[in-house]
Amino acid sequence: MKRIAVFPGSFDPVTKGHENIVRRSAPLFDELVVAIGVNADKKSYFPLDKRVEWLKIVFADLKNIRIDHYHGLTVDYCLKQNANYILRGLRTSADFEFERSVGQVNKMLYPQIENIFMLTRPEHTPINSSIVRDIHRNGGDISLFVPELVSGLIEAWQ
Amino acid sequence: MKRIAVFPGSFDPVTKGHENIVRRSAPLFDELVVAIGVNADKKSYFPLDKRVEWLKIVFADLKNIRIDHYHGLTVDYCLKQNANYILRGLRTSADFEFERSVGQVNKMLYPQIENIFMLTRPEHTPINSSIVRDIHRNGGDISLFVPELVSGLIEAWQ
Amino acid sequence: MKRIAVFPGSFDPVTKGHENIVRRSAPLFDELVVAIGVNADKKSYFPLDKRVEWLKIVFADLKNIRIDHYHGLTVDYCLKQNANYILRGLRTSADFEFERSVGQVNKMLYPQIENIFMLTRPEHTPINSSIVRDIHRNGGDISLFVPELVSGLIEAWQ
Amino acid sequence: MKRIAVFPGSFDPVTKGHENIVRRSAPLFDELVVAIGVNADKKSYFPLDKRVEWLKIVFADLKNIRIDHYHGLTVDYCLKQNANYILRGLRTSADFEFERSVGQVNKMLYPQIENIFMLTRPEHTPINSSIVRDIHRNGGDISLFVPELVSGLIEAWQ
Amino acid sequence: MKRIAVFPGSFDPVTKGHENIVRRSAPLFDELVVAIGVNADKKSYFPLDKRVEWLKIVFADLKNIRIDHYHGLTVDYCLKQNANYILRGLRTSADFEFERSVGQVNKMLYPQIENIFMLTRPEHTPINSSIVRDIHRNGGDISLFVPELVSGLIEAWQ
Amino acid sequence: MKRIAVFPGSFDPVTKGHENIVRRSAPLFDELVVAIGVNADKKSYFPLDKRVEWLKIVFADLKNIRIDHYHGLTVDYCLKQNANYILRGLRTSADFEFERSVGQVNKMLYPQIENIFMLTRPEHTPINSSIVRDIHRNGGDISLFVPELVSGLIEAWQ
Repeated sequence: MKRIAVFPGSFDPVTKGHENIVRRSAPLFDELVVAIGVNADKKSYFPLDKRVEWLKIVFADLKNIRIDHYHGLTVDYCLKQNANYILRGLRTSADFEFERSVGQVNKMLYPQIENIFMLTRPEHTPINSSIVRDIHRNGGDISLFVPELVSGLIEAWQ
Repeated sequence: MKRIAVFPGSFDPVTKGHENIVRRSAPLFDELVVAIGVNADKKSYFPLDKRVEWLKIVFADLKNIRIDHYHGLTVDYCLKQNANYILRGLRTSADFEFERSVGQVNKMLYPQIENIFMLTRPEHTPINSSIVRDIHRNGGDISLFVPELVSGLIEAWQ
Repeated sequence: MKRIAVFPGSFDPVTKGHENIVRRSAPLFDELVVAIGVNADKKSYFPLDKRVEWLKIVFADLKNIRIDHYHGLTVDYCLKQNANYILRGLRTSADFEFERSVGQVNKMLYPQIENIFMLTRPEHTPINSSIVRDIHRNGGDISLFVPELVSGLIEAWQ
Repeated sequence: MKRIAVFPGSFDPVTKGHENIVRRSAPLFDELVVAIGVNADKKSYFPLDKRVEWLKIVFADLKNIRIDHYHGLTVDYCLKQNANYILRGLRTSADFEFERSVGQVNKMLYPQIENIFMLTRPEHTPINSSIVRDIHRNGGDISLFVPELVSGLIEAWQ
Repeated sequence: MKRIAVFPGSFDPVTKGHENIVRRSAPLFDELVVAIGVNADKKSYFPLDKRVEWLKIVFADLKNIRIDHYHGLTVDYCLKQNANYILRGLRTSADFEFERSVGQVNKMLYPQIENIFMLTRPEHTPINSSIVRDIHRNGGDISLFVPELVSGLIEAWQ
Repeated sequence: MKRIAVFPGSFDPVTKGHENIVRRSAPLFDELVVAIGVNADKKSYFPLDKRVEWLKIVFADLKNIRIDHYHGLTVDYCLKQNANYILRGLRTSADFEFERSVGQVNKMLYPQIENIFMLTRPEHTPINSSIVRDIHRNGGDISLFVPELVSGLIEAWQ
């Protein structure tokens, strides 16, 4: 059976932490779909097309990575992709508590889908998209926190 | 002195976790009021009358349970009910930290009211109303997470 | 059915936190057994007879409190006492994680026994027997941390 | 080099916890700026001018305290004040996880600025501005939770 | 490159939680080594040969599972096995904090080895070997907590 | 009043995390005593004289740092040193919970002594002396985790 995983998130915007998790986990799967979950009720900071574009640039060199977006439940999207794994990065114990609830509920809904977790690197642990947006909104320097290849593009976006 | 407890919450909607906590704690109290706190500033997902109706159906077989709703502070409502106990379920350590702050502040306001906590069962630990709403909003199957007696009613509500 | 609870612990020594939890929860139960669990593999700092004596002095004024000690599993002891509740105090989220594991395992072993938790008061939150022993061992002043009635007795013990 | 610290927050409203942290840490610094961060996207409950006024009253007796407010990133404000320290109070482990992320990101942006943390006193641990606002909104008694000098002013504000 | 993982632990004794993690993760790897780490300084409760025997019985039906034991550092053992993954189960946030430290240190020592985490099922979350030993030591019923195939063997061991 | 701080610990052995905290906090105090607490009941892994020697080498370039050791309670030692501050580094929320209990108890014993906390850098967060000892005991490479100046000395010690 092919090992297909979905790495879901809002990637608003993609961070060095996201990039690192994807690069390190790519060899574990035959195919890895980096998928932006679109939440109709929650306005994103960066537009969807830009978030997709930046992900495509960041992971252009990886053969088994596909960029996509979806509406609705992550588990329903996984079924449509024939994905048997959901990949998530863990930074803090607050992350862990949240991921455990969502992951265990997903598992009850669709027992065939497994959640796989990887640790962020220590130096990426404090980075999250919400802090990056806050710095961007205030005109600060985000280049330390987002992938080098798209740092200028994200910074320039208004 | 009669042992009267209030089990406050938004029950938006009632979950199997709520049901289980109420059934297990009912024998500890002479009277247990399951009370929906109405927050004027925060729109609920399910309407108040439905949430009340579902609670009434779920606990119809328990003699010492009463369903109610209230505006304002939970402790003020307890005073009006002559309740000396606030009952809360604990699932995660994030829950615990939140409940501790609220419980200790309530205790400073009205030292005569005690907070009593019970653990959810392991299989109910990941379930919370917010996840149930998310599944409902996306047309998923919520029957694993809400009390059997009202599962169809909640699912049908639009 | 009578509401009988066991408050288990090593009480090595009893603290102001223990005292406060017992006094506040006593009205909730018809009978409350404060029971020292004797662990054959772990040497206590204060001898068992002293720990029993101090508990008896501290709670002498409470009619529905009994002091006892036991060997073996807490749940087995509860069965022998016809106790249907285990009472525990919660101070920190580390406490909570530990108590949740033990409590949920106990519940699987004997579903008829419920775990009931109460919050320590904020000013008792940092106090635990291990810190008190450390201060005692080094000749420090423990009177702020143990019940007034036995403070002198504990301090004098060598 | 002068030791200048910024104690940032929304102080919506100032609590006994804030007051206590500032009084205890004031001797550590040559100058301590209590600074209200104004967030354009998030409406405060109490108006800025009142929050400034209350802080000025509470700390009027302390020579090395200055009250101010700022827009934008806290670290940028610190640079403008020549501040080399950011002071924060820690109450719970949820606080800690949040502060660690923000503090470590700030440190990456401006390595010359250090984050200094102090513990709240046990009896102030459950108090936070959000709970105080909730009590105020519902006409409850907030005098236990805010500095004595401004308790009446805050209570009277509508 | 073959995906070889090590699932290290003391398995003192193996629990239903361990069994479940191994069965669910086995398809993700080409080979999975369940390896008992022998700590010279810490006496185990069950002897090594029994712990190995029980693991062999539990996983006899899985083709890509091998049972082994090792001395020294887990990462050194992984190198000798040509393993590029360390698999760990996560139950609580206390687990997570511990695993994060060990995992990130291992990653600094040998960047080529990745840590992969899976969630225990909710009903296995409270189970750990230490609680099982405590019940066994006191003659309690451990059959709910250890794999069915070896439950009798473990119970009979003295 | 002179700002004198004690940075207590077992430094068994000193890590890069310890070194970093001391270097960053040194400017905040007029004098900073790095003090090894000797616990009569707990055997250390490295001998006291070596631990003192390594600390002296690591901080030889810092004018306001003194290396010392003490028996008994940390707060009693602080009084003898006329120290008004205890400095501690925070890595994880488990650290925080522990430090909060100890710090708040110390504060009750001697209100004049304040606890000051600093964050470790992200890359030092997973490092602690216990993991370093474990690697050393097994002949692994500890040079990534201890200060460069003493790395060879610690590695060579048997």
